[in-house]
Amino acid sequence: MDLQSALYTDLYQLAMGQSYFLKQKHEVTATFDYFFRKTPFEGGYVLFCGLEEVLSHLETFTFSEGDIAYLASEGFDKGFLEYLKTFQFKGTIKSMPEGTIVFPFIPILTVSGTILECQLIETYLLNTLNFQSLIATKASRIRHIVGDSKSLAEFGLRRAQGLAGMQASRAAFIGGFDHTSNVLAGKAYDIPISGTMAHAFIQSYDDELTAFRDFAETRPHNCVLLVDTYNTLKQGVPNAITVAKEMEARGERLLGIRLDSGDLAYLSKAARKQLDDAGLPYVKIAASNQLDEHVIRSLKEQQAQIDLYGVGTNLVVGKESAALDGVYKLCSFNNTPRIKISENLKKMNFPGEKQVYRYFNEEQQHIADAITLDDLEAPNTMAHPFEPHKQMALSPYQAVPLLQVVLKEGKRLHPELSAKELANIAKQNLEKLPIEHKRFAYPHIYKVGLSPELEALRNQLKKEKLKR
Amino acid sequence: MDLQSALYTDLYQLAMGQSYFLKQKHEVTATFDYFFRKTPFEGGYVLFCGLEEVLSHLETFTFSEGDIAYLASEGFDKGFLEYLKTFQFKGTIKSMPEGTIVFPFIPILTVSGTILECQLIETYLLNTLNFQSLIATKASRIRHIVGDSKSLAEFGLRRAQGLAGMQASRAAFIGGFDHTSNVLAGKAYDIPISGTMAHAFIQSYDDELTAFRDFAETRPHNCVLLVDTYNTLKQGVPNAITVAKEMEARGERLLGIRLDSGDLAYLSKAARKQLDDAGLPYVKIAASNQLDEHVIRSLKEQQAQIDLYGVGTNLVVGKESAALDGVYKLCSFNNTPRIKISENLKKMNFPGEKQVYRYFNEEQQHIADAITLDDLEAPNTMAHPFEPHKQMALSPYQAVPLLQVVLKEGKRLHPELSAKELANIAKQNLEKLPIEHKRFAYPHIYKVGLSPELEALRNQLKKEKLKR
Repeated sequence: MDLQSALYTDLYQLAMGQSYFLKQKHEVTATFDYFFRKTPFEGGYVLFCGLEEVLSHLETFTFSEGDIAYLASEGFDKGFLEYLKTFQFKGTIKSMPEGTIVFPFIPILTVSGTILECQLIETYLLNTLNFQSLIATKASRIRHIVGDSKSLAEFGLRRAQGLAGMQASRAAFIGGFDHTSNVLAGKAYDIPISGTMAHAFIQSYDDELTAFRDFAETRPHNCVLLVDTYNTLKQGVPNAITVAKEMEARGERLLGIRLDSGDLAYLSKAARKQLDDAGLPYVKIAASNQLDEHVIRSLKEQQAQIDLYGVGTNLVVGKESAALDGVYKLCSFNNTPRIKISENLKKMNFPGEKQVYRYFNEEQQHIADAITLDDLEAPNTMAHPFEPHKQMALSPYQAVPLLQVVLKEGKRLHPELSAKELANIAKQNLEKLPIEHKRFAYPHIYKVGLSPELEALRNQLKKEKLKR
Repeated sequence: MDLQSALYTDLYQLAMGQSYFLKQKHEVTATFDYFFRKTPFEGGYVLFCGLEEVLSHLETFTFSEGDIAYLASEGFDKGFLEYLKTFQFKGTIKSMPEGTIVFPFIPILTVSGTILECQLIETYLLNTLNFQSLIATKASRIRHIVGDSKSLAEFGLRRAQGLAGMQASRAAFIGGFDHTSNVLAGKAYDIPISGTMAHAFIQSYDDELTAFRDFAETRPHNCVLLVDTYNTLKQGVPNAITVAKEMEARGERLLGIRLDSGDLAYLSKAARKQLDDAGLPYVKIAASNQLDEHVIRSLKEQQAQIDLYGVGTNLVVGKESAALDGVYKLCSFNNTPRIKISENLKKMNFPGEKQVYRYFNEEQQHIADAITLDDLEAPNTMAHPFEPHKQMALSPYQAVPLLQVVLKEGKRLHPELSAKELANIAKQNLEKLPIEHKRFAYPHIYKVGLSPELEALRNQLKKEKLKR
């Protein structure tokens, strides 16, 4: 199965594409916006992730001969299939950089091209950006509560949603994790990998001490011993201390122990005391078992003595949300702004090609985003998108435009950024986001508004549509 | 990125593998069990899914030269890497067939081989089976509430967890869906595909009626019109009726309309009446928008007039659970049964190589599963696994063994079953499961027990371990 195939799409994109083709509308230009309406995890922001993968993928997004044959067997028109044979995405993408902090309703990325090519890439684009942004956001929340002095390892591959485990490891790293247990992700994305040992290793021995000794001998530089197979405090930690002392005698150092069950707050403090009393203050304590940002917050409140948190399921499937509701909406067709009418103002889109300005205060923290029409200057005031009587003055702040051309006529303008570069960008951006937007319960709602020109255009198009 | 790579694993598998290798234990035989402890969705069962993919994958699970070079750069031992260069999985897998209904704590699949090969495949195996079983189970719940007379379409690719969208489409089909919107899954798994149209198509026209006309002309045999872009009942349905009449005049038939917003119960009944009053009783009504088994149940209670349900996000990410907690535990090493001790009896595993018998009543419904030691006959009584005073007589029922060898010395014994064959198997199996286990709220708990011999072995090993 070739996951690069342009068949990685919903059938209706091809059905609509065929209609456009047969009605000779397929090369009319269009622009679509990517945005979401609701932050996941009841949080205050989203960390935008997945862009670099999307751009590289679009450069090679084609239909193979087998793909064309399959579509023929599904009854597609011969002329249309001839056209698809040489299809390449030749459109233009403007986007915020991967690693940007984003908020509901702002256009994060826009695609301009023929209506056909814009539709054909929709599903892949949503699939990739929605998921990786979800996971990077989750990772950044966990990093936020852990702080910079402790380590975070992503352990999720066994419970990840199938092949999504690869993309989850990438996004978790960009969102702030230090390493992954996923070896293929380590190789593919150049992410540091880490791992300890499983209960099965210890069970394959008649006794825990011999298992620890063998593991330490064969992994002298990176040895973390799992201490909860039988009894953590009466057996596991004492055996680890014995082995640590034997390693010291060989001039080596035990890196750490891992707790994977029981009360992690109590056990980590008791284990820390045992290790310290044995003169082993350098032996670190790793903990895992159904961790997420809320459990870690509680562990920290209890002054748990944990140096490394291993987080699996809850991170890689993005619990409790499991999906980001990002959408892709037509905002311009044939160089004319388009709008979708709805009784619910929140379900209407913002018409026309747009720019987003981000406003920074003197402390280099950003406090508002204004959406305006493309090629206009940064506005001095903005209106709430759904409660237009709410206005905000923007003149005291410094404005930075966020949408830049990243792919032109189907080709990237810059080489792909590595996961490490993206993790740095994300970290810097998170530092510019005021902390009130990062808290878990009822985060401060970030101000997003419309420029006077965009608001006027929306109101005019709405009036015209409703007249008909 | 080669997703067939044997690096698709957690680092600790390789770290333990290296220890086994350096201590010359790597070719000692072992057996691991795959099982889960908790049903997802607070439901009564799991539909086992993903096996056929696992078996095909394991036949080709190898380390490439690039993989070996990567591991060398991570400091792995040269002798161990030489060994991995020619590594192939040569073990034996016994399993229940894909499409079997399974329950907490029963061994669903067992892997026997060298300890090294058993460990190296663990992560891939868990990743695949956990996810596909989760989604197939969700799909079967939706099919259960919808019944056999209505159609179910999986629409989830845009909100699926990245590449997991492929496996989600497969599992949803096996669990009871009729078709998918995912074209690549249609091709890869030979699953029927379906699709309608998006709002963007209609917005690309100045008026809805012309958009409908063009779509119907270019898709005469499979035309479903999306009627909620402007006003469903005042504009969308009347325009669809106009087009349906024009199609009738050409000797064609409009297949259906789709509702994607608003109150689906009210709108579907009103739209049905408009269509019927226009002499179009054959035009079907499709509905979508955040559906799941609970919403569909409510729609049915309100006698919504919906012929096809399109289900996306909630199905393909397996909401609200998002993960199945399947684990892989050592039960035998060097032909000796192994146990993991825990203060929590539920966290202990069942030692030794095992068989599972399923007991059927005269109506061909199954009412209990007994776990026993391999090569023993079906037991006549069983004990509750965690409350041993609870006993159950099994003699009135007919016993069928569920675990069969499916892969021997690394090779499948049977050709891969297609998604269509597996969907049939799953459907037949679901019919044999009593309905009390299928209800959504507090389903009847299925009886799983231990044979007297297995219970005795567990108690003996537990006593021995605790003595030390």
